[in-house]
Amino acid sequence: MSAPRPQHAALLQFEVKDDSLYIGGIPLARLAQRVGQTPFYVYERRAMTERVALLRKHLPTDVHLHYAMKANPMPAVVQHMAGLVDGIDVASGGELHVALDTGMDPARISFAGPGKSDAELSCAIAAGIVLNLESEGEMERAALIGQRLGIQPQVAVRVNPDFELKSSGMKMGGGPKQFGVDAERVPQMLRRIAELELDFHGFHIFSGSQNLKAAAIQEAHEKTLALAIRLAQDAPRAPRIVNIGGGFGIPYFPGEERLDLEAVGANLRRLLEEARPQLGQAQIVIELGRYLVGEAGAYVCRVVDRKESRGQVYLVADGGLHHHLSASGNFGQVIRKNYPVVIGTRVAGGPRETASVVGPLCTPLDLLADQMELGQAQAGDLVVLLQSGAYGRTASPAAFLSHPTAVEVLV
Amino acid sequence: MSAPRPQHAALLQFEVKDDSLYIGGIPLARLAQRVGQTPFYVYERRAMTERVALLRKHLPTDVHLHYAMKANPMPAVVQHMAGLVDGIDVASGGELHVALDTGMDPARISFAGPGKSDAELSCAIAAGIVLNLESEGEMERAALIGQRLGIQPQVAVRVNPDFELKSSGMKMGGGPKQFGVDAERVPQMLRRIAELELDFHGFHIFSGSQNLKAAAIQEAHEKTLALAIRLAQDAPRAPRIVNIGGGFGIPYFPGEERLDLEAVGANLRRLLEEARPQLGQAQIVIELGRYLVGEAGAYVCRVVDRKESRGQVYLVADGGLHHHLSASGNFGQVIRKNYPVVIGTRVAGGPRETASVVGPLCTPLDLLADQMELGQAQAGDLVVLLQSGAYGRTASPAAFLSHPTAVEVLV
Repeated sequence: MSAPRPQHAALLQFEVKDDSLYIGGIPLARLAQRVGQTPFYVYERRAMTERVALLRKHLPTDVHLHYAMKANPMPAVVQHMAGLVDGIDVASGGELHVALDTGMDPARISFAGPGKSDAELSCAIAAGIVLNLESEGEMERAALIGQRLGIQPQVAVRVNPDFELKSSGMKMGGGPKQFGVDAERVPQMLRRIAELELDFHGFHIFSGSQNLKAAAIQEAHEKTLALAIRLAQDAPRAPRIVNIGGGFGIPYFPGEERLDLEAVGANLRRLLEEARPQLGQAQIVIELGRYLVGEAGAYVCRVVDRKESRGQVYLVADGGLHHHLSASGNFGQVIRKNYPVVIGTRVAGGPRETASVVGPLCTPLDLLADQMELGQAQAGDLVVLLQSGAYGRTASPAAFLSHPTAVEVLV
Repeated sequence: MSAPRPQHAALLQFEVKDDSLYIGGIPLARLAQRVGQTPFYVYERRAMTERVALLRKHLPTDVHLHYAMKANPMPAVVQHMAGLVDGIDVASGGELHVALDTGMDPARISFAGPGKSDAELSCAIAAGIVLNLESEGEMERAALIGQRLGIQPQVAVRVNPDFELKSSGMKMGGGPKQFGVDAERVPQMLRRIAELELDFHGFHIFSGSQNLKAAAIQEAHEKTLALAIRLAQDAPRAPRIVNIGGGFGIPYFPGEERLDLEAVGANLRRLLEEARPQLGQAQIVIELGRYLVGEAGAYVCRVVDRKESRGQVYLVADGGLHHHLSASGNFGQVIRKNYPVVIGTRVAGGPRETASVVGPLCTPLDLLADQMELGQAQAGDLVVLLQSGAYGRTASPAAFLSHPTAVEVLV
């Protein structure tokens, strides 16, 4: 007997009635009419609100939650999140404008990212947000710009830790990295921050992302807090913020299981109880993007043609990798795996078949589902890619082959 | 002794004077001033013109050359190419508009791509261009739309061949595929084309792309012509066009060598001499995108920060994967390799060092050069990625992290 094939985790955070997906309480076919075109992305307020509530329930009460808006910068989404979280992290001047437009207190907005331009530094300093300094050079540039503007820059130091987040989708710490300042050089930088009279807020220590293993995150939390305490000894003043990063993953592919949030929260509570005397009043910040919005969104496209080729069924859709690069398996993935995909009005019932969903592009890379079991679909049916609320539309080559862009709606 | 490290092929199609790159005869630093911003893409007319001349020299005189504009749809580039080639292939309604705007005779424009929408079919039929039919379903839809418009659709059949292009970057034929109609079903489809009174132009047989091996392309040409002759026997009239695809690759990575165009051309001449009696007056079309424009373009960005981390040098640039996904190794590549990269004003001379070029994005995927030997660069220096004239700007996630877009210029 062969081992059972790995399955997608139970992912249907959206309601299903009469075998149709409902998003934001709206039957999918009606939603498509309301949007007025396919393809589109739809994000659900309720799912985001519930996700933040789940985090509040499991994380220690003194942990502040920030939204890393790079995951989904749609202004309506950022506005919704601004009402739920304690701060927003931005990754560019463009994102900064959207974050400020929500009315969020600038002191609760932070800006990380290597290669900030002078123009971006200038906007950020004028706005009074917290700059996460990525290098000594950036520190010097920020100080000069602050002098020119006559405004004291608000800064934190992004640290390249001397450890990494194990089992991580993307590693961002340990060894040589383009992010932050090597931990061993931070004490010297802190002295220079005092000399330059920058307003020091604290540390940003980010060791990886998209991690599903509680043990790896627990270990990173422990090492991160220890590093922050060590670095604080050389700070010009007690840190007001210690941003311990994010890294909480969501399940995308067959065989992946959900992160054990309860375990992560309990461990962090214990660590904070121990560390609090040394951390003083510092706000502990967890910064999440994908984990907050990734499961709250879907990408919806329509079958244009159903064809067979040498015994295989192809559903040719009006959407593809130009809107959803990650789902096609071409954004940093080594091995292509299927996202969870359903036919929107034939979710689980009716006749089933093995079919591939491809897009309209002239490239074999344009594959949204590779021989999955799906409800039997015809031209006109809606194909839904779940787990698509983060790094979807903006992480895709929209102009590729000059097809229409995807609309986004928040319901 | 270890084997010598593989090197990039000699790629400097652009002039170098006083250790500075010249593109379109303009020193790079001056060009950057003229463009007025970094990052930008620059494409050179001369390089494209010379590439077409090279093809004309080596290919048989009765071969027609088409430009597959998906490789680079910048309108000024398409206009320049329209003056050099014999036809344009488009992959969407959006591309069709740009192709028609060049003034190219619609009979010399063809439209391939699975999942053409009714709106696209309608535009194409009204324009009088040649539709490469990708399925029986598309044929029926085209016929209906033609009737409704009172215009006879001009059609060719895209064939999914019963062989594939060996050693190909992307395989598009052989086995089950989303492209075209399986060769064995084409005779039946041709009978239906006659019944539907569609104006039959011929065949489009495309077996792969980005191939550097002359022997593989030669074999594909032989099989493609044989297949066309076989299929022509069931056609409602003698084919006027046999599009044998493209597939000519360009060298990107260390160790890759240029395609032997002379061998490909000589082989095709021999094949056509043999096949001509059976092919009658049919135009033989070779359709190329990347091979025509890929080497004529460069992506230019500027160093914003120079930093070291644990012994490695990072040049943090204002450009990155959001403008040039392929160069970051994240567009369909399994193993990341370096594109050819130079510091634009320190091309080969002066002090050298091993450095990595990274972009401004908060992701370790944003890597444009991984520990390459480069001229020693400082903030303000220009980084140039060569071989970037095809599948660059439009194949990249421009909106990712809301950074400014890249400008394009043709010089």
